[in-house]
Amino acid sequence: MPFARISLQRGKSAAYLRTLADQLHRALVEAFEVPPDDRFQIIHQHEPGELIVDRDYLGGPRSADYVLIHLTAGRPRSAATKQAFYRRAVALLGEAPGLRPQDVMIVIASTQAEDWSFAGGVAALVAAEVQS
Amino acid sequence: MPFARISLQRGKSAAYLRTLADQLHRALVEAFEVPPDDRFQIIHQHEPGELIVDRDYLGGPRSADYVLIHLTAGRPRSAATKQAFYRRAVALLGEAPGLRPQDVMIVIASTQAEDWSFAGGVAALVAAEVQS
Amino acid sequence: MPFARISLQRGKSAAYLRTLADQLHRALVEAFEVPPDDRFQIIHQHEPGELIVDRDYLGGPRSADYVLIHLTAGRPRSAATKQAFYRRAVALLGEAPGLRPQDVMIVIASTQAEDWSFAGGVAALVAAEVQS
Repeated sequence: MPFARISLQRGKSAAYLRTLADQLHRALVEAFEVPPDDRFQIIHQHEPGELIVDRDYLGGPRSADYVLIHLTAGRPRSAATKQAFYRRAVALLGEAPGLRPQDVMIVIASTQAEDWSFAGGVAALVAAEVQS
Repeated sequence: MPFARISLQRGKSAAYLRTLADQLHRALVEAFEVPPDDRFQIIHQHEPGELIVDRDYLGGPRSADYVLIHLTAGRPRSAATKQAFYRRAVALLGEAPGLRPQDVMIVIASTQAEDWSFAGGVAALVAAEVQS
Repeated sequence: MPFARISLQRGKSAAYLRTLADQLHRALVEAFEVPPDDRFQIIHQHEPGELIVDRDYLGGPRSADYVLIHLTAGRPRSAATKQAFYRRAVALLGEAPGLRPQDVMIVIASTQAEDWSFAGGVAALVAAEVQS
């Protein structure tokens, strides 16, 4: 149910962007209790001056690969689940497309099931009944 | 008071986009307790690879017309109001610009009145006093 | 800890955008309890038809300089702090780049510390321990 806004500097290949999105989705499925076919991702590509990040973390500055992942979750998760997801996302994005840990930032906004209408003008729970 | 981020694939005409935004606003006025002159909409147009939506709903896949409407509401609404709004939005967007129900997705984030400053550095309630 | 999405019409110079972002950050530091080196800003530039704002405030219409600042805060602030921030932001943005009060709109979304992973797959509090 979550959807993710993925913001980064323009200039990566289509394959890079797809790998980034695939790995993020994999982390959501493995560590954030998201079904595999439940995927909504929007990539925002920015010019360098449009993405302003000054703070350094973990002993080194952000690079031009910096990605800010703004996740809107369909229901609240525990702090432990969030932390497991952060770790898994950074590990998978490190494998491919090869992001450094310093360049992965994640922010989660939580909503409730009634805040979602996936299609057809029905709320999430109703949609689930239609599908099942 | 709400504002809407409307995300879709690039390539529609200016008239199509305006109609989409007009119909969404009409649904907000008719079914979400929004005054007619209270309108804030941002359209994000994306390349195909920037908008990743894999899940099918209601028996058919999303099309290239898929629209994700991310609404930030100025105060919480009841589940019944949200559901009425979903239905009205899909009905009106089906009339014009002609969106299929499967292609309309809506997510609502709720805030409080004090989270809004419409102008002039004053919070919403203060602004209302200035105006009235 | 907050991050800001700054939406405005395309067409301003790089220097204008930087000044706008700098002044917003200054308002956050001075009036929103944000450390100076805690800065995350994303600028979304839009074509005229992509930014639809009909409502007039404070006796005059919005201009083409209209800016919508969508702030995601790392923890809730009091209503008084929010109001002080609105006032300070409008004052500073009026000084430079010279925005009229009517053209500055701010919306705040609140999250919790556990919703943030700044880097390295660790949650905010853990990251703070790593750094200190």
